Amino acid sequence: MSRTIADEGEFGLIAAITEGLTMPDAVTVGPGDDCAVFAPTGQVVVSTDAMVEDVHFKKVWSGPHDVGRKAVGSAVADVEAMGATPLGVVVALSAPAETPTDWVLEFTKGVRAECELAGAALIGGDTTRGPVIGVVVTVFGDLQGRTPLLRSGARAGDVVAYTGRLGMAAAGLAVLGRGFRSPGAVVRAHRVPEVPYGQGRVASESGATSLIDCSDGLLADLGHVAAASGVAIDLDASALDVDEAQKTVAAAIGGGDPLHYILTGGDDHALVGTFAPSDVPTGWTVIGAVQDGEASVTVDGAAWSAEAGGWRHF
Amino acid sequence: MSRTIADEGEFGLIAAITEGLTMPDAVTVGPGDDCAVFAPTGQVVVSTDAMVEDVHFKKVWSGPHDVGRKAVGSAVADVEAMGATPLGVVVALSAPAETPTDWVLEFTKGVRAECELAGAALIGGDTTRGPVIGVVVTVFGDLQGRTPLLRSGARAGDVVAYTGRLGMAAAGLAVLGRGFRSPGAVVRAHRVPEVPYGQGRVASESGATSLIDCSDGLLADLGHVAAASGVAIDLDASALDVDEAQKTVAAAIGGGDPLHYILTGGDDHALVGTFAPSDVPTGWTVIGAVQDGEASVTVDGAAWSAEAGGWRHF
Repeated sequence: MSRTIADEGEFGLIAAITEGLTMPDAVTVGPGDDCAVFAPTGQVVVSTDAMVEDVHFKKVWSGPHDVGRKAVGSAVADVEAMGATPLGVVVALSAPAETPTDWVLEFTKGVRAECELAGAALIGGDTTRGPVIGVVVTVFGDLQGRTPLLRSGARAGDVVAYTGRLGMAAAGLAVLGRGFRSPGAVVRAHRVPEVPYGQGRVASESGATSLIDCSDGLLADLGHVAAASGVAIDLDASALDVDEAQKTVAAAIGGGDPLHYILTGGDDHALVGTFAPSDVPTGWTVIGAVQDGEASVTVDGAAWSAEAGGWRHF
Repeated sequence: MSRTIADEGEFGLIAAITEGLTMPDAVTVGPGDDCAVFAPTGQVVVSTDAMVEDVHFKKVWSGPHDVGRKAVGSAVADVEAMGATPLGVVVALSAPAETPTDWVLEFTKGVRAECELAGAALIGGDTTRGPVIGVVVTVFGDLQGRTPLLRSGARAGDVVAYTGRLGMAAAGLAVLGRGFRSPGAVVRAHRVPEVPYGQGRVASESGATSLIDCSDGLLADLGHVAAASGVAIDLDASALDVDEAQKTVAAAIGGGDPLHYILTGGDDHALVGTFAPSDVPTGWTVIGAVQDGEASVTVDGAAWSAEAGGWRHF
């Protein structure tokens, strides 16, 4: 019998999770006291994100390392979307008592690996029993003197540009849901997002007027920007590059337009911003324009089909 | 049929939860964007606390308002225990789709009521489906230029003093577990802790050498202080006032020593600190002394019985 977290006890488990952690200078007290302590240089941004087994991931589709990476990546993307620099995360994990210790240790390795990519420190957490695996990552970032990039700043005359991936995770979920494990690129994208770390600061320093991370789907997330800014956004379908893997998936499972994944697929956490046309940063792709008009998001001047919406969790 | 959260949808639910919220000056961006933003004046403290249905509370024993208050109170106590001033909370709620909307709205009222008592703003959150009610509160505090109060600062010659309640929640849990609903004082204490808000700052300004909140039980929590500080702590049983309700419960359910609740009962979130004898703040009760010696916690010079330990979550 392999050991379970019930064998470890709460304090043993926490000791294993935090073993060998090192803290950056900005974190003055790490895990182990009532609170962690950090010293920001500017305003602090904060966001919290919950992931629940069989709602956001399935253990048969995603290993513990994947789950740890995805929980951190999807949370830190919100810090990037404010134009802030990731600083730290705290992680609350609930799990059944019979969960193998190895599952939690691999999950922790995933959390720590993604934190390292993001430039964020794991500064605290909580562990408890629960009927399924539940992960809540709360993330903090430092604006370092920059102004927060809000959803409400888009102006007519701006262009819309993004960096990162779009619609890959949704294509992965579509094939996994039908019992396939390929194409590998989309399955991997479902398991772990590839968050464009550092690009939030780049967008801010380039003069972005608004920024959001694409978690619910491009149309849904730009809908939030359009509503908050009071503008109309029109996307140029020809600028949205469909990946070969997305074409393969769309052809295999019914022949629908693979653009659907790009427009409505969530969970990739691309960063999407609005900029004056001369301010678009290197490496970002222009995909649309901001116009005066009623708050709306269109594709080539027309509404996308009714099924084009974000993921609804309830 | 009453409405459920599945009827509301995620965005409708969030709109209801955040309706009419006002933000203090330190919160420059409230709920509704990718992150909330706040402007601390000193170092920031942060802690995260998970509460899961049927692990930390039962819906038949605690109403939604109680659950909301307890989730916030038990989290904010960690901010007090650093000597910091509560600033804000973010709340992640997972719940079954068939949860009545009214349950969530009452829970939210409890969250907001306890936030108001604590002086903390509800600045963000996340909602998702899950098999049971799960609440994760992450809390931030501002040290406002003060030095964090750690577990490691206790020195021989200090006295141990506390403010708040001890062993009331555990007595409440004991009677509820046996099907009773009285004495009311202990049942209410199980449902909602009475956190001594503001006393963390008082302890810091009075020169406390260490501070902790009593969440696992007095002996267990002082054990953390003894271990981190490398000191022996001896408590004076005669200084620990047993409440009449605790005596009633102990007599009714087996005649055990009601001191057991005070020494081992968690969830009351009293603040327990160490101070030079002349530095004990008004309203705090001296209950023991810090001595040179191997890290340990004794009562009247002797180890408490084997069953005296903190709550183990796994």
